[in-house]
Amino acid sequence: MAKEPRVVTAALIIIGNEILSGRTKDKNMGFIADRLTDLGIRMMEVRVVADIPADIVDAVNTLRARYNYVFTTGGIGPTHDDITADCIAQAFGVGISEHPEAVKLLSARYKNPADFTEARRRMTRVPHGGVLVDNPVSTAPGFRVENVYTFAGIPVVMQAMFGSIEHELVGGDPLLSRAVSAFLPEGIIAQPLEKIEKNFPGIEAGSYPFQRDGKFGSQLVLRSTDADLLDRATDALKAVIVELGGEPIEV
Amino acid sequence: MAKEPRVVTAALIIIGNEILSGRTKDKNMGFIADRLTDLGIRMMEVRVVADIPADIVDAVNTLRARYNYVFTTGGIGPTHDDITADCIAQAFGVGISEHPEAVKLLSARYKNPADFTEARRRMTRVPHGGVLVDNPVSTAPGFRVENVYTFAGIPVVMQAMFGSIEHELVGGDPLLSRAVSAFLPEGIIAQPLEKIEKNFPGIEAGSYPFQRDGKFGSQLVLRSTDADLLDRATDALKAVIVELGGEPIEV
Repeated sequence: MAKEPRVVTAALIIIGNEILSGRTKDKNMGFIADRLTDLGIRMMEVRVVADIPADIVDAVNTLRARYNYVFTTGGIGPTHDDITADCIAQAFGVGISEHPEAVKLLSARYKNPADFTEARRRMTRVPHGGVLVDNPVSTAPGFRVENVYTFAGIPVVMQAMFGSIEHELVGGDPLLSRAVSAFLPEGIIAQPLEKIEKNFPGIEAGSYPFQRDGKFGSQLVLRSTDADLLDRATDALKAVIVELGGEPIEV
Repeated sequence: MAKEPRVVTAALIIIGNEILSGRTKDKNMGFIADRLTDLGIRMMEVRVVADIPADIVDAVNTLRARYNYVFTTGGIGPTHDDITADCIAQAFGVGISEHPEAVKLLSARYKNPADFTEARRRMTRVPHGGVLVDNPVSTAPGFRVENVYTFAGIPVVMQAMFGSIEHELVGGDPLLSRAVSAFLPEGIIAQPLEKIEKNFPGIEAGSYPFQRDGKFGSQLVLRSTDADLLDRATDALKAVIVELGGEPIEV
């Protein structure tokens, strides 16, 4: 019998009215999803919440108890609607104040003290117990409190911050996947696919329909932490596709 | 004193492991956000949940109690991992069975009875009390139960389904917005912007930083349900930008 895979989980909280109103289109979810999958971490849930402290605090406390890692994006800039740091402090029941290392970093960036405005000083405020996350793009750091990482919302900055900390994330057994496409509609391939999942315990099967050149097809994805099992299930799937008169295309 | 605006709220539940793993990049959130804003409905929260019945049921029941409308996308196809309809039935505590009208629609599409497979019949299952949502793209309908609309996940189908029902959504007073850009960094404009929000009660102000041609700028967005108030606040904002040596660009 295959040994139980080690599963490490995560959730993402996207903070900001501008995403919910449609003014800004989120680009961070797809990036973090891809990187976590590569690192063997399963993202289990994403929440997009408004700039409402109670909603942010509730999302942080619910998700940090439920999953191994939580990431937040957005709301750590210098303006009055940047309330994420205060909400993280509130969620953990700790105080918040200017972090000396963050003050040093921003003082070095704004050499003329007049440029280091009160608004910019807001970006040095970190919940007590927080560890800074390096921001190689625009200096103002993110931070980590226990298992919750707080990143900026601007994609280029968020990606740089993620790069600064990804070495410290501990993944589980990576969930391997193989994808096979065929110009067979889902309604035809659905039942054989379910049978493969039943015949190969440890395999998760998914089906994603597409339409190309006016023809309906399905991308069939098999996932497992066991590479051998995945190979055998993929061979069985290809055989079924041929039986149904399709041509399996591994993608 | 301005009268209290009539606020209508909504939430979106995006269902599917493929979004959480990064294999599929969501395109529905931005579309629904834009359309709801146009209709005067405020999206307050989005959740992306895995293909886990308890998680889906919990999200549906939490959000349908909290907001005027809930939309779900994904998980209503013919495959065994399409569990959304069952989860909606469970959330409402009702049964589920083949909807006669949906059977009629799909029978007409698959004229050869052999093509109307058991898998495809799954797509006719609707929670009891559900009303069909027309699918002009690929026939298999979505449905509405009370204030919860269930749509397909494929963007072109989801958009068509949304188009089928948007006339029945009742919006509140639309939240009008005016956006002004300037090549002033957030750290400079943050405090004057906060002052404008304080001086013009009924105005919500947001600031979204950008970087263009190597220069930092801010897009400043004022929102209100009161058009006159919005005009006056926008004029005040432009004056502040000029005072700070910037050039206001209305976008």
